Amino acid sequence: MSQPFTPSGVITLTTDFGHKGPFVASMKGVMLTRFPTVRIVDLTHEIIAHWPAEAGFWLERSYRYFPDGTVHMAVVDPGVGTSREIILVQVGQHLFLAPDNGLLAPLIDQTSDAVVHRVDMARLRELGVKEVSATFHGRDVFAPLAAALASGRLAPSDVGPTTTEYIPCWVEAPAASHNLVTGVVITIDTFGNLITNIGQELVSALSVPQVHIGGHVIPFRRTYGDVRPGDYLALINSFGVLEVARSEQSASDGLGVQRGAPVTVRSF
Amino acid sequence: MSQPFTPSGVITLTTDFGHKGPFVASMKGVMLTRFPTVRIVDLTHEIIAHWPAEAGFWLERSYRYFPDGTVHMAVVDPGVGTSREIILVQVGQHLFLAPDNGLLAPLIDQTSDAVVHRVDMARLRELGVKEVSATFHGRDVFAPLAAALASGRLAPSDVGPTTTEYIPCWVEAPAASHNLVTGVVITIDTFGNLITNIGQELVSALSVPQVHIGGHVIPFRRTYGDVRPGDYLALINSFGVLEVARSEQSASDGLGVQRGAPVTVRSF
Amino acid sequence: MSQPFTPSGVITLTTDFGHKGPFVASMKGVMLTRFPTVRIVDLTHEIIAHWPAEAGFWLERSYRYFPDGTVHMAVVDPGVGTSREIILVQVGQHLFLAPDNGLLAPLIDQTSDAVVHRVDMARLRELGVKEVSATFHGRDVFAPLAAALASGRLAPSDVGPTTTEYIPCWVEAPAASHNLVTGVVITIDTFGNLITNIGQELVSALSVPQVHIGGHVIPFRRTYGDVRPGDYLALINSFGVLEVARSEQSASDGLGVQRGAPVTVRSF
Repeated sequence: MSQPFTPSGVITLTTDFGHKGPFVASMKGVMLTRFPTVRIVDLTHEIIAHWPAEAGFWLERSYRYFPDGTVHMAVVDPGVGTSREIILVQVGQHLFLAPDNGLLAPLIDQTSDAVVHRVDMARLRELGVKEVSATFHGRDVFAPLAAALASGRLAPSDVGPTTTEYIPCWVEAPAASHNLVTGVVITIDTFGNLITNIGQELVSALSVPQVHIGGHVIPFRRTYGDVRPGDYLALINSFGVLEVARSEQSASDGLGVQRGAPVTVRSF
Repeated sequence: MSQPFTPSGVITLTTDFGHKGPFVASMKGVMLTRFPTVRIVDLTHEIIAHWPAEAGFWLERSYRYFPDGTVHMAVVDPGVGTSREIILVQVGQHLFLAPDNGLLAPLIDQTSDAVVHRVDMARLRELGVKEVSATFHGRDVFAPLAAALASGRLAPSDVGPTTTEYIPCWVEAPAASHNLVTGVVITIDTFGNLITNIGQELVSALSVPQVHIGGHVIPFRRTYGDVRPGDYLALINSFGVLEVARSEQSASDGLGVQRGAPVTVRSF
Repeated sequence: MSQPFTPSGVITLTTDFGHKGPFVASMKGVMLTRFPTVRIVDLTHEIIAHWPAEAGFWLERSYRYFPDGTVHMAVVDPGVGTSREIILVQVGQHLFLAPDNGLLAPLIDQTSDAVVHRVDMARLRELGVKEVSATFHGRDVFAPLAAALASGRLAPSDVGPTTTEYIPCWVEAPAASHNLVTGVVITIDTFGNLITNIGQELVSALSVPQVHIGGHVIPFRRTYGDVRPGDYLALINSFGVLEVARSEQSASDGLGVQRGAPVTVRSF
């Protein structure tokens, strides 16, 4: 059983919609219509198209910076209009609403108290969802549900029964053995820093970690300023995962490494 | 006569300013200075530069997702600093403020109850507009007017007399004959979907519609998931217009089709 | 001594983080957690990476469009994790919080009443700052301080002692002699307009100003509409500085001129 959820009135949005057209805005309009005092924060709308894994990674790593009582809505939804389902996950005093396509799997797997509800699509009208287009559930299903949850009009248990089944993440969890950790580049930031899905707890088990990526070996440091401009370094970044960076330049461009690239950490 | 307008305190912004520099932000600063509790939603700032037709299309298609009482401000304004005028349009409980350059013409033409006011530029100072730069009316004219309208300090009839004359849209309205509908690609979204100005009411009149675009013939389907990844389809999208898409890929890239391209729908 | 600061509850954000990932959003989450009624405006997150000069230029030019009582937070911070310090500047009823890396130098230099405080990094915990990562002071230091200042929980004098020393701007201030003004292209907007750091007061001293840039001579006009589409012009833009533009096209593309390019104005 999940604990009762006390909403703060804050909703975060994570999508792959980009900034062209009124796609994000029309979701906000629906929320404001149903919950006029909602406060909405754009997490990011530049998730790589149709790749739920990146959205789930960022949500799992960043939700704790938002107030207790926040509803996090994520719509990276290549299966819209098919029979894919929607899940609502509660972790402590945070709610997460997303398609059941693996997006929220890392969050569920990495927290001990996650409670998963399957949204009862047959009861959408009862839940206050009216017309549903075949191609834009973000506006027609997720936004009304998120507004109702953030305003306290719906409780998590109202949306549907709990479940222990959900689609796994499209990206394998990082693997650790005696002297070796393997993972992938899960996202790349504006500066060209290569951000992996390898958590610091896996790296800190190694005595003198060295990072292997794209045929290069990268030394471990504490922060960007610890090397000269143009030099490469690996570090545990501010979201607690392994990152490969190049001081004041783009590691992605310099190493020719893209999202999805394998990363290995060995003890020297 | 327009009915009395009851503001909700919400303003939407549509521009071609992009996200570099403080252009959008300084408009918001002006609004917050004059109306501290305003709630502002960015519709989009990625309208193709100097092309009012795209802004007008998106506003006409999306305004109904915002609360009654919303003020929609659109600044795509290649004629700024010349003698072009400004119009305020009321449709039901929504207000639209834009240059009189054809931007709002599709909205006016497609609604039966639109009331158009011409902003009396000679009375701007009386309306609370102070210094006006020659190049940024978005910040110096539109933002103060929108804030005054959204706060209820000005009523629509305060800004100037009604009129039945306005500049037409730069893009011709779609044309329909017995077995044929013609239109154009009016915008392209982040996924590369080609969005046309052809409304579903024109397409549904055809028995077995087929879409011709860029030398290709595209079959009609209900949603993206109805074809295999990589296949093309045409559908009525979530904003009620004809869209040409490619499942999980970019139709724009795949077909080599750009904004403005002609589109024809024939009955098979 | 600075005058007492009366916060309006508004914070503006200026960074080079772009829109990928939850970097900006996690700063907003921290602010909302500590000050639930904060109103946050994104000034821009597209400052050229690691170039504080552009951020300082835009802040100095745009802060006056925000309400008195606004806290402006700018994080363009190539020295994060090194021993660089943080300064808080008060100018009238506006506060500015930024790394001491030259970002705020133009603002301080161009106002007569700027009061500079050096943030006492040894007292961060006392100021309500808890865990500090080595790479993301925007979220861990600046955001909590900005929220505390915007909510009135901290006064400017609480953060540390005043100082008259600070790092100068990375870009030289424009120079004016009898018949000649020199400066640089400090930023380029979405339309490709070349915006210089040369204020109108320097240009208006010249009788018939002509602008020299990239080997071209550009005539002076009042607004974009004063030349034919495709023609170049120089003008004083809406932020009070010299701009080189091309009507309805990109001056940057047309002239092949980038940020940092030298600009000269001569009297004809």
